[in-house]
Amino acid sequence: MSATTETAARGYSVTRPCRHPPRWDLETDVAIIGFGAAGASAAIEAAGAGAQVTLFEATSGNGGTSALSGGEIYMGGNGGTPIQIAAGFHDETEALYRYLLMAGGPNADAAKVRLYADLSRAHFDWLLAQGVEYKNSFIPQRIVEPDTDDCLIWSGSEEAWPFCEQAKPCPRGHTPKFMGMGAGRYLMDKLAARVNALGVDVRYDARAVALITGDDGVVLGVVIRSAGQDAYVRARKGVALCAGGFVMNRAMVKQHAPWMLRSQHPIGTVDDGSGILLGQSVGGQAINMSEGFVTLPWYPPESLIQGIFINERGQRYINEDGYHGRTAHYGLRQGCTRLFSLQDSETYGEPAFGPFAKIGIAATGDTWEEVEKELELPAGALVSTVALYNQHAARGEDPLFHKARKWLKPLDQPPFVALDCRIDVCFYPSFTLGGLDTLPTGEVLDAARQPIPGLYAAGRTACGLPRWGEGYSSGMSLADATFFGRQAGRRMAQ
Amino acid sequence: MSATTETAARGYSVTRPCRHPPRWDLETDVAIIGFGAAGASAAIEAAGAGAQVTLFEATSGNGGTSALSGGEIYMGGNGGTPIQIAAGFHDETEALYRYLLMAGGPNADAAKVRLYADLSRAHFDWLLAQGVEYKNSFIPQRIVEPDTDDCLIWSGSEEAWPFCEQAKPCPRGHTPKFMGMGAGRYLMDKLAARVNALGVDVRYDARAVALITGDDGVVLGVVIRSAGQDAYVRARKGVALCAGGFVMNRAMVKQHAPWMLRSQHPIGTVDDGSGILLGQSVGGQAINMSEGFVTLPWYPPESLIQGIFINERGQRYINEDGYHGRTAHYGLRQGCTRLFSLQDSETYGEPAFGPFAKIGIAATGDTWEEVEKELELPAGALVSTVALYNQHAARGEDPLFHKARKWLKPLDQPPFVALDCRIDVCFYPSFTLGGLDTLPTGEVLDAARQPIPGLYAAGRTACGLPRWGEGYSSGMSLADATFFGRQAGRRMAQ
Repeated sequence: MSATTETAARGYSVTRPCRHPPRWDLETDVAIIGFGAAGASAAIEAAGAGAQVTLFEATSGNGGTSALSGGEIYMGGNGGTPIQIAAGFHDETEALYRYLLMAGGPNADAAKVRLYADLSRAHFDWLLAQGVEYKNSFIPQRIVEPDTDDCLIWSGSEEAWPFCEQAKPCPRGHTPKFMGMGAGRYLMDKLAARVNALGVDVRYDARAVALITGDDGVVLGVVIRSAGQDAYVRARKGVALCAGGFVMNRAMVKQHAPWMLRSQHPIGTVDDGSGILLGQSVGGQAINMSEGFVTLPWYPPESLIQGIFINERGQRYINEDGYHGRTAHYGLRQGCTRLFSLQDSETYGEPAFGPFAKIGIAATGDTWEEVEKELELPAGALVSTVALYNQHAARGEDPLFHKARKWLKPLDQPPFVALDCRIDVCFYPSFTLGGLDTLPTGEVLDAARQPIPGLYAAGRTACGLPRWGEGYSSGMSLADATFFGRQAGRRMAQ
Repeated sequence: MSATTETAARGYSVTRPCRHPPRWDLETDVAIIGFGAAGASAAIEAAGAGAQVTLFEATSGNGGTSALSGGEIYMGGNGGTPIQIAAGFHDETEALYRYLLMAGGPNADAAKVRLYADLSRAHFDWLLAQGVEYKNSFIPQRIVEPDTDDCLIWSGSEEAWPFCEQAKPCPRGHTPKFMGMGAGRYLMDKLAARVNALGVDVRYDARAVALITGDDGVVLGVVIRSAGQDAYVRARKGVALCAGGFVMNRAMVKQHAPWMLRSQHPIGTVDDGSGILLGQSVGGQAINMSEGFVTLPWYPPESLIQGIFINERGQRYINEDGYHGRTAHYGLRQGCTRLFSLQDSETYGEPAFGPFAKIGIAATGDTWEEVEKELELPAGALVSTVALYNQHAARGEDPLFHKARKWLKPLDQPPFVALDCRIDVCFYPSFTLGGLDTLPTGEVLDAARQPIPGLYAAGRTACGLPRWGEGYSSGMSLADATFFGRQAGRRMAQ
């Protein structure tokens, strides 16, 4: 009987567990599915605690979606990392806690936020111990990601309303010492080197096709398909799903977060939802599935923050000094495709990512009336919005949206410019923020929030710190993946 | 061993199926959980097709949340019901299809909408056959629900943009011939009488505490708890979960739709989510769990539709001629608690539900400047919004939100009034729109959209026609519950 026939005959799949494996082809303590930041961190901690660890990766190399990223990790608290302190910031744990709780939105997981806030500073030391290096430097300007090897940046909405009212602002985005953008690959190289040094058995081109459960529902292991053969893997201490999110599975996105289909630029590698589906197949509950991250990298230069966003009704909709993902998220909720960033001759600067993000110039004019007309907006709509904004800005106030005073100035110096931020034209990348409900230990929970014995998840497969597009800040995903990957690894090794 | 000890020892619960029942206490063809409109309709069809049907209801009477409703059912197509035709409307099936597809939102189920649009007209005849009577009358004014025994009303956003652009408008809300509001009880009395006449075995005070599955995952039956005793019920042809939604389970609402917690008036009877949890316990996938219905009954009188809604930034946010649930839903998304309906002396009329819904007067004035000041809104914000609206309305246009011309007039006749529609003060009732993913036949699907043998769901326990607060129209829930309850009943009886 061929492997394929055998599989079909047995009737298991990513959504149906295997209940009676014909044999055990491989036995290990801990089986980890996925070699991104979460899987690597889980493997390092489990192996470091003495467990026998086997790591299965569906592709031919390590890194996953983590390696596509900027490598930034959101850290602070306990007074601050050495880099925060050197830059003159004192970062209280409570400020980090309150910021992350707000950033997580109405569905934030207070237990995870608590644990992370308490141990974030120590997590920085752990990263150093894995060989990740950070330059002792801070970039005060608002940017998306350093194109140098500098470290600390404002990577969220810390100084923007309403966050600044509830949590003392502090920059917390830590980017590794890597020259240029895309330090995620560097981060993964360091973590992968540790995984290998610890003797973890890594199997590439090895895909998890089903979980294996006992009749009592306990997860006993996992079926791994490689080169057309199914191997039945017994994992004595647990299976950890670290297989990414579901943004590349457009059917799943359509089912759970159809609004995200408006972003035509999903960011992922595999991210086919298989990790989440495997968890669901044994009763794990997927939560927060309708939430996602969407952005438009419209700054730098930071002078653009002095401009205002309007929708195609000419209405302003957000304080423009929040993180670019927050402003983009509000833009997507405007119920239209045309969005504009209005600038005058003093605030305008060519968007650094303009050519890449397809942010062009939609209209120019010597008066706002001209701009309004060129954009074919309803008569008076843009003009009255700018007039109201200017009237308040001249007094250093933004009573509608509370943009901070430092970014306020009347947009009254012609020529005027409307930047084209159309959702169907510009680069609005996206990824999902829903996943399996887990305890801070990584234990996967059922709908009654009871742990499913033997099953763990971390990274985008789980629902962790980042849960809300409106509050997302750069570095929250890798913070979540590395830190909670570690918790799962340690718990499994016990 | 007492019943309680026995249960605990067996380890099953609403989220953990029972795998090895010690015995069968009762055998039936079809077990239906819940005696609301969905359960009753399923029972009628299954019993009518010759199946042995047992209906378990957790409370001591029938009706469920359906009996709390206005009894309105959204129907039409195939030229129209006799009542639509008598009122001068010709309702094409395609118009009904397109309207329901839009009303279902980005996650609408095209297969369900198709089937319902095709058979909605026949469903009207079925209701007549069950003894439900309708008066041949039409109320052309925009109301929430007849307080007479009249039948046909505009119960959605059919004439409002953008719906009117894609589907020819037609009134489709059919309310039974029952004097006064609250015809849901009348509807349930009729359906319950049929259930009893067909010899369905109805068990009250009988709660489903777990599903029973075979090792192969097939649903074999259900554990029913009554008077402290657990009975193991074998259902040869299937179990149908018709147990309502989860709006009364505030922990579930917090987990899945935290934004709905802003509504302090959940509408439900049991609606504790147990139907959904039972389905999930055997691999059924709950979808659309973040969506819900919220409303504020701010009209009649319909003259109020000529006013405009603003948020606490003084911004308008919706065309006011949509269904009250649509306008309320947009209000909730404004990120503030203060919302106002602005009226002038020609449009103002005391809101019919004002005292009940706690809609008071927030401010009055001889100028809009006075009103703005009294509301303590940002200087110029309300005034510029009204000025822009008036400028367009004077030309019979609403280029920002496309309110229909018949509702447009400048708000320029003092004295002016701002109605107080605060979210934390007024009556914003809510219910959930997420549930188990099902086929139009009622078969419950897993995460791979494969049916779980032996398991069915209908009504709010399933995710049916209504899926989107912004598109919800009165009568969609009972249309869904009765029609798809019938489909499940018929399928199980096969």
